[in-house]
Amino acid sequence: MPEMRLNLVTRDWVIIATERAKKPEDFKRAEARPFIEPYVEACPFCAGNEAKTAAEKSRLRDDGGWRVRVVANKYPAVAAEGEKKRVTDGVKRMVSGVGLHEIIIESPLHNSSPALMELRCIEDVVRVYKERFLAAYADARVEHVIIFKNYGASAGTSLEHPHTQLIGIPVVPVKFRDRVQAAMHYFDDTGSCMMCDMIKMELKDGRRVVVESDYFLSFIPYASLSPFHIWILPKRHSATFADITEAEIQDFARQLKETLLKFYIGLDDPDYNYVIRSSRPADAGNVYSHWYLSIIPRLSSVAGFELGSGIYLNASVPEETAPYLKGMRG
Amino acid sequence: MPEMRLNLVTRDWVIIATERAKKPEDFKRAEARPFIEPYVEACPFCAGNEAKTAAEKSRLRDDGGWRVRVVANKYPAVAAEGEKKRVTDGVKRMVSGVGLHEIIIESPLHNSSPALMELRCIEDVVRVYKERFLAAYADARVEHVIIFKNYGASAGTSLEHPHTQLIGIPVVPVKFRDRVQAAMHYFDDTGSCMMCDMIKMELKDGRRVVVESDYFLSFIPYASLSPFHIWILPKRHSATFADITEAEIQDFARQLKETLLKFYIGLDDPDYNYVIRSSRPADAGNVYSHWYLSIIPRLSSVAGFELGSGIYLNASVPEETAPYLKGMRG
Repeated sequence: MPEMRLNLVTRDWVIIATERAKKPEDFKRAEARPFIEPYVEACPFCAGNEAKTAAEKSRLRDDGGWRVRVVANKYPAVAAEGEKKRVTDGVKRMVSGVGLHEIIIESPLHNSSPALMELRCIEDVVRVYKERFLAAYADARVEHVIIFKNYGASAGTSLEHPHTQLIGIPVVPVKFRDRVQAAMHYFDDTGSCMMCDMIKMELKDGRRVVVESDYFLSFIPYASLSPFHIWILPKRHSATFADITEAEIQDFARQLKETLLKFYIGLDDPDYNYVIRSSRPADAGNVYSHWYLSIIPRLSSVAGFELGSGIYLNASVPEETAPYLKGMRG
Repeated sequence: MPEMRLNLVTRDWVIIATERAKKPEDFKRAEARPFIEPYVEACPFCAGNEAKTAAEKSRLRDDGGWRVRVVANKYPAVAAEGEKKRVTDGVKRMVSGVGLHEIIIESPLHNSSPALMELRCIEDVVRVYKERFLAAYADARVEHVIIFKNYGASAGTSLEHPHTQLIGIPVVPVKFRDRVQAAMHYFDDTGSCMMCDMIKMELKDGRRVVVESDYFLSFIPYASLSPFHIWILPKRHSATFADITEAEIQDFARQLKETLLKFYIGLDDPDYNYVIRSSRPADAGNVYSHWYLSIIPRLSSVAGFELGSGIYLNASVPEETAPYLKGMRG
């Protein structure tokens, strides 16, 4: 019989299709990714093509070049210039679409991939994430910042050069508010942080853990909404990514690389999204919020059942996919 | 400058990309749908292949045959047999995945399409929706029923024979709870039903209306989360689909056909999902809930921006797409 499990963080119920579950290896990417050149003349993100991007916001320098570069998005979802204005009119609510939309170019090379990049390069990228996260919240119009990566066409990217996006918007998304509220109710109910309790439970149980290190834990949640959906959480209670220390950055980079490498090997380099879910720097003292990185692979064999029904159907069992992934070694 | 609009029903903010908006006709289906035969031997839903389906639940008879047929899903998301049990263990919440998963076969013909079907056939389908909706709630294990249609591969269907799914689950989805809560707060704030107020506003404004008839209104919401997303609402306050009258069924069928035909002509027969969002029959007296049908076309040209960011980005303007669609005539 299938099991319905409640994702306590999102409050979504997911049907874990235990009887019709696929084997972990059935989720492998169907077609091999084509060969990619290290330099592409038309790519605005390749070293040498810097003039093709919009305004540069930041760069990590290297001898005679750069290691990571941050530029304004040429086609921003929200306008960089302009005042924030609100309009309320009957059932209509409108806010001017102003804020930040930046591209973090992770490497001068077109054919890098976080799973295969050198560790020091990923550390650089995470350092830049932190710098831009803090800088974005310094913009008074910005109320919420999301750092996310779309890897591959089915994850919604149109540019293959390795890059991450940062978007700072003038409102707070309801999905973020809902997670905070769920965590708050949990705290009121139990006296502890939900994520801290989950970490304890996952370590004790062990079956869903993928990577553990000094400062972070990566696991497939008990009520994972889709196959191989992974969370990487700081083991210490920390409400905001802004508070990540240098030692934690190095540990986090290693764990991120290791987790993505396991995807690369175990699922043949699947498309994926990842996103940092974090409270803002000013909420650092919050006792019930706990930041994390969520990695959602886009696996071609996943049915679109929930597109129509709005109900999550996971055709895999976390207790089977996690050990499979854990066993993959680079 | 883009506009951020708040969808009062889901509480989601959507960025309406006014400056980068595409023209309505740019959303047309890229490739023509292949020719489909009226009968396919391997199809379990075609007339003559009745033995290939699971247990029949209901049928609308015709001279020597059937017009609409309801069968159990051979590969149900929830098990038809079994007791409902709950387990709570630390941060884990589990309910046995029992309930109903039915297929409503809309026509004996393999190549029918609601946009082109005869009106009386669509009326039959809606009558069966009502019958099965009521029957599903009679199952004591079922707490929530969703009737939804996935049309085309990108909408998540694997079978092209025209069919709708009904699923009855033993819990209530959080997204439904959240909509009810938002509507409740709106009622407390204003003293009226949010949907009733929206209908008044849309009729007064007029720019987003697609079809209006005696009993129903179809429009593209002000804060539509994706291009050409349409709602069909009963004009009278009605909390549950269970209360639809025979006169309303006929009117609703006509409006559904007309709306889908406008999609067919204006967007070249796009893939889409539709879903009935309704409270259960027992909540008929609810003053703030208002049932509706939501149609979400899957338009190939839509970017996957929100896959990663979790922020809705609509590259169309409802005030432009609605008049375009309204102008399409069969």
